[in-house]
Amino acid sequence: MSVPHAAAIYSGDYHAVPLSHDSYHILDPDDFVASAVCWPGNTEDVSKAVKWANKWKVPIWPLSIGRNLGYGGSAPRVRGSVVLDLGRRMNKVLDVDVENAVCLIEPGVQYVTLYEHLQSIGVGNDLWIDVPDLPGGSVMGNALDRGVGYTPYGDHWAHHIGLEVVTPTGEVIRTGMGSMEGSECWQLFRYGFGPHQDGIFTQSNYGIVTKMGMELLPNPGGVRVFMAAFPQYDDLHEAIEVIRPLMIRKIIGNVPMVRLGLQDASLYKTRDDFELDERGVVKPDSAQKVLEELGTGAWVFYAALYGPDDVTLAKYNYIQEQFYKRIPNTKFYQREDVPENHYLHNYARFTTGIPTWRELDRMKWIPNAAHLFFAPLSANNGKDAGRQAAMGRKRMEEYGFNYLGTFFIGTRAMHHVISFMYNRKDIAEKKKALTCIRALIADAASIGVGEYRTHLALQDQVSKTYNWNDGAIMKFNEKLKDALDPNGILQPGRSGIWPKDYRGKGFELWGGEERSSLVEDKDELNLTPLSP
Amino acid sequence: MSVPHAAAIYSGDYHAVPLSHDSYHILDPDDFVASAVCWPGNTEDVSKAVKWANKWKVPIWPLSIGRNLGYGGSAPRVRGSVVLDLGRRMNKVLDVDVENAVCLIEPGVQYVTLYEHLQSIGVGNDLWIDVPDLPGGSVMGNALDRGVGYTPYGDHWAHHIGLEVVTPTGEVIRTGMGSMEGSECWQLFRYGFGPHQDGIFTQSNYGIVTKMGMELLPNPGGVRVFMAAFPQYDDLHEAIEVIRPLMIRKIIGNVPMVRLGLQDASLYKTRDDFELDERGVVKPDSAQKVLEELGTGAWVFYAALYGPDDVTLAKYNYIQEQFYKRIPNTKFYQREDVPENHYLHNYARFTTGIPTWRELDRMKWIPNAAHLFFAPLSANNGKDAGRQAAMGRKRMEEYGFNYLGTFFIGTRAMHHVISFMYNRKDIAEKKKALTCIRALIADAASIGVGEYRTHLALQDQVSKTYNWNDGAIMKFNEKLKDALDPNGILQPGRSGIWPKDYRGKGFELWGGEERSSLVEDKDELNLTPLSP
Repeated sequence: MSVPHAAAIYSGDYHAVPLSHDSYHILDPDDFVASAVCWPGNTEDVSKAVKWANKWKVPIWPLSIGRNLGYGGSAPRVRGSVVLDLGRRMNKVLDVDVENAVCLIEPGVQYVTLYEHLQSIGVGNDLWIDVPDLPGGSVMGNALDRGVGYTPYGDHWAHHIGLEVVTPTGEVIRTGMGSMEGSECWQLFRYGFGPHQDGIFTQSNYGIVTKMGMELLPNPGGVRVFMAAFPQYDDLHEAIEVIRPLMIRKIIGNVPMVRLGLQDASLYKTRDDFELDERGVVKPDSAQKVLEELGTGAWVFYAALYGPDDVTLAKYNYIQEQFYKRIPNTKFYQREDVPENHYLHNYARFTTGIPTWRELDRMKWIPNAAHLFFAPLSANNGKDAGRQAAMGRKRMEEYGFNYLGTFFIGTRAMHHVISFMYNRKDIAEKKKALTCIRALIADAASIGVGEYRTHLALQDQVSKTYNWNDGAIMKFNEKLKDALDPNGILQPGRSGIWPKDYRGKGFELWGGEERSSLVEDKDELNLTPLSP
Repeated sequence: MSVPHAAAIYSGDYHAVPLSHDSYHILDPDDFVASAVCWPGNTEDVSKAVKWANKWKVPIWPLSIGRNLGYGGSAPRVRGSVVLDLGRRMNKVLDVDVENAVCLIEPGVQYVTLYEHLQSIGVGNDLWIDVPDLPGGSVMGNALDRGVGYTPYGDHWAHHIGLEVVTPTGEVIRTGMGSMEGSECWQLFRYGFGPHQDGIFTQSNYGIVTKMGMELLPNPGGVRVFMAAFPQYDDLHEAIEVIRPLMIRKIIGNVPMVRLGLQDASLYKTRDDFELDERGVVKPDSAQKVLEELGTGAWVFYAALYGPDDVTLAKYNYIQEQFYKRIPNTKFYQREDVPENHYLHNYARFTTGIPTWRELDRMKWIPNAAHLFFAPLSANNGKDAGRQAAMGRKRMEEYGFNYLGTFFIGTRAMHHVISFMYNRKDIAEKKKALTCIRALIADAASIGVGEYRTHLALQDQVSKTYNWNDGAIMKFNEKLKDALDPNGILQPGRSGIWPKDYRGKGFELWGGEERSSLVEDKDELNLTPLSP
């Protein structure tokens, strides 16, 4: 099977993408591969497919849209699994409650389709969605992976309200107020009565979410976006120290970001625009020259302030003062200060809920570019940010990769997302990327730093770093898995959680080290795609 | 055993209260009663006690402080259970991270002790806690019951970060980043890697929480509290319609409330100050007279605006305009407009994190007053609020109780908390209260309205109203219960979740209908209190 080009992966016809592989494969493209794809049309179909899988003890791998690029795409963890491609037919916005600013969606609703739907019913100016870097992904899938965006609703999972879930044995539950027949509050109140189950369905293999409520952000009546550029690499420490109280005190109310100047520059430049050392790493002098030419800094900060103009102006002035006190050479830019192709204009769209495809420009950095993310969680302080950036840079340059880091800043912690760009046609480079990221996971764990999310091939390693009290959390997770999925059919290995029949049989070693396909001979299994 | 007076329950020496009963008993005081009380000193003790309970198959009932008054107090659901009184010795504020505005606490930390601790380390003015009506309860216990307060952090559960939990089989887990050895982010980031388990430990019997992180509210640099009084009973509809967009748009940022004028008046008056009808219900004319004398309304609204003075003034003017448009006779009061004993001064303390005991004044309403709450969840709209208030009023007056309702207003839904005041020395009145509240639960369920929390004696009934898809959520909850607590020792019956050995044996019928004590002869069990 040929590997689709990035453009086909992201844009145009969604169905041009084969939802049986990871199109950004870091291993052999056929390592993580499905045996069949099934397109359920509704919750009942999903339940039927799950019951079928239990009967035949076939592993199944549900997808919303399959755009989890950088973390495994649409590949199943166990080769030969049947992919349930929910997004193909279950792709409707089931309800928009304009008065309460919430919606109810199916797995296949993409950010861009939700945006267009709100436009089409005439409320797009009043109710905003929170878009991540690229709007082709599933709104539900991203929330279930606990992804982040850019507006005040940037913690996507924190802004869901109510789930419908098919359990691994095929029962259908609704959580929160949805667990009461006739309740009008399923999308209005997050909890119900008794235990609040929702969280166990994130980053897990405990159920297939078929409907989800999401809050929509009411237009706050104005936005002011700005960029601050910090001249020195070492300014990172002070910058984060300035930002922390601004976040805790909600002076900045969105999810802002600090990113490396070179990462920012990769939107405008390719690697060929720089002088490289013998390892392929951009030389510091060369980076410096380009950053100056672009009028940017060693690190840049993007943030949005919401509300009436006088309020955001007062906040902007206050924020500038705070930075000037500790980093006197900070340069500030608002939209009117930058050229038309500047990312800040894009940022203004992101922070007002308008999808853009601009981040695709990064894919020009190297030929046949694919990406993979190393995404450790950082405290909101200069010390942690500094040591993580240094750690990432040192290890990545050792392997010939440029450290391209961004800190997405929450109220009290940051997602430090480091982009690995690699040529997916270069097998040696893929091996280097995999070895490097495995080394980084170990580096991080040795100083008590863990990843918030990781690539499918690395989930066993990462889950093992969550090791407090002899790995008590995994034992607990396995207990839940055994209870909810006794036949072990749903997403074996997701987040490192293996059903009991798989444990101790070497599956955890997979990902470049050992093959673990459940089904070696696909003909023998004789799977045929389910209806329709 | 004698029943302590309200004053002893709430104030003075916490240990004057026997933590083996519900001091606000609605059934016979000995119906829900413990056989022994154990005081663990640390997590290891809790684990030992749990393992002991598993060995002897004795039900255990952990408490934080036991002040869940109105919802069952410190009574265990199954008579003869061993109470684990965690609060007695595990009562420390383990850490306050001033820079990040978070703390780590044990079960026995009361609101008032946390407040005093922050004062004692000199950060009480900078970091606020969110206090509920009375500050004697456990900060952790209230969050685990998903209680609410008054500040922007009023959804207590939504503002916890990280748990340590002893499972029903005695293992110790830490959730979120606490599941990684050496992580510095346990109290900074809510999630970890893989499933997010925290929610299943609320309102459940799946584990004993021994440590919890809580966010502290940074002083927002100013507060403006106000009361709005609406003259007509029917103004409730329009008032809620005005409030909804103010909440969704965060113009009001705290958890404000609308309460019945009579409920407000019960802070200043006793029932004897009114003329009653033959059922004991306050006559409308008499209520009207008192409300006029107090300068209040049929309904009153209390809210807080945070920030610099000019910002809160602009918001206050905007809010007034919105109300005047739809309820022209609304009266507004700020602190300077009301006498010293007015509740608004108390409200100013609540909304700035200062504990008060003022709500105790309500206990003078009738002799030997006890209270019980009926707490349905309402949509943030006039229609739902109106029908719930009418339903509550009609049914309660039928049984001779005054409907005393308050709506605690969240972003998209409200906790409609209705206070039942009854004389706990009057057996007939207690029976009437129980019958009435059971009728209300059924009334509510018939229109798709469910309770967010309920008294121990009513949890079976309420849990059965969460009946979507043939009670699928309870089947799911029971599956989790069986997996996590195979011997069924932890809080049997909490939230209607019974271990498998109890099911179908009539336990669910208990609460005035049938006895279900596991241990009829306490001597035979020969329980002795655990160490120390």
